[in-house]
Amino acid sequence: MVVRHINPEGLHRSPAFSQAVVVEQPAKTIYIGGQNGVDAEGKVVGPTVGEQALQVFRNLALILESEGASLANIVHWRIAVVEGHSFDEGVAAFQQVWNRADPPPAITVHVVSALGPGFLVEIDAVAVV
Amino acid sequence: MVVRHINPEGLHRSPAFSQAVVVEQPAKTIYIGGQNGVDAEGKVVGPTVGEQALQVFRNLALILESEGASLANIVHWRIAVVEGHSFDEGVAAFQQVWNRADPPPAITVHVVSALGPGFLVEIDAVAVV
Amino acid sequence: MVVRHINPEGLHRSPAFSQAVVVEQPAKTIYIGGQNGVDAEGKVVGPTVGEQALQVFRNLALILESEGASLANIVHWRIAVVEGHSFDEGVAAFQQVWNRADPPPAITVHVVSALGPGFLVEIDAVAVV
Repeated sequence: MVVRHINPEGLHRSPAFSQAVVVEQPAKTIYIGGQNGVDAEGKVVGPTVGEQALQVFRNLALILESEGASLANIVHWRIAVVEGHSFDEGVAAFQQVWNRADPPPAITVHVVSALGPGFLVEIDAVAVV
Repeated sequence: MVVRHINPEGLHRSPAFSQAVVVEQPAKTIYIGGQNGVDAEGKVVGPTVGEQALQVFRNLALILESEGASLANIVHWRIAVVEGHSFDEGVAAFQQVWNRADPPPAITVHVVSALGPGFLVEIDAVAVV
Repeated sequence: MVVRHINPEGLHRSPAFSQAVVVEQPAKTIYIGGQNGVDAEGKVVGPTVGEQALQVFRNLALILESEGASLANIVHWRIAVVEGHSFDEGVAAFQQVWNRADPPPAITVHVVSALGPGFLVEIDAVAVV
């Protein structure tokens, strides 16, 4: 597999994301459905974006670990936050779980009207191994 | 092609979706743009989420059939519903078109402010054959 | 690589998008994160959807050119526009940058509550080479 995180000249750079990720010859591609801040029983873990985002990252990691992968294998994730809430706490949760030595995924962030009942944040992702 | 629908231990399970879908060696990957509840002339089929969702599933099936595939080949779909509307009727439409023997795709659901004029639901998808 | 843009019988046709794009044997797949109407320093280029959309297309092109590709290599893009704004100016920008001889990508359009501060439009994309 070849994966290159690219930040071409002429575009701004951020430590939080790569502008794009180029993938050649993946052994497998993992399509991860929107993860929410819920535990193994499907119960929402708490009423804040911070708590929910941390659980979302845990769920993403758990799925990836079951395939011998980790968060570092994500090439693009799409984050949705419910209107009226900031993703600042989500960024803090990201910094808590992310290994700074790994180049970050491409990212999309939308503020939406709502998600499932009680959910404030949802992240889906494509990962390659 | 190898496709595995995964629901790792430690995550809740639902009959409506898989937590993730792992794809190896696809013969082809089909990127399907957002489908709406419109007929062959592009006319909205009706004013309810249920009618529109059923038409969306028909359109998805039609696209997939043209490639020798079916809804079961979808690995991830992203559903958008317009604010003020519930996707409950969409779930009913899903149960009508979905073969329960097939493991369901990974799923993302967003409630958005609006879609194109008259559209209440839009579903895009990635399918592999 | 084999890429086919499909518009099966029974679905309406539009010059603005393909219903789906089928990809076989890509040399590489490029996952492009949500691009906004910002310049090389990350500054928003202007307060209108038209200005921002044109810059988004420039940023997408710049990323693709760095990989020896062009906008024509995009197979699916997802457009988000902020509530209260129309994408009509974005369509005009698209017509300005798009080579009409190329079959257009599959498309998804959502009107969302908000994007990052000052952003009115965001487009992410998958491209294949």
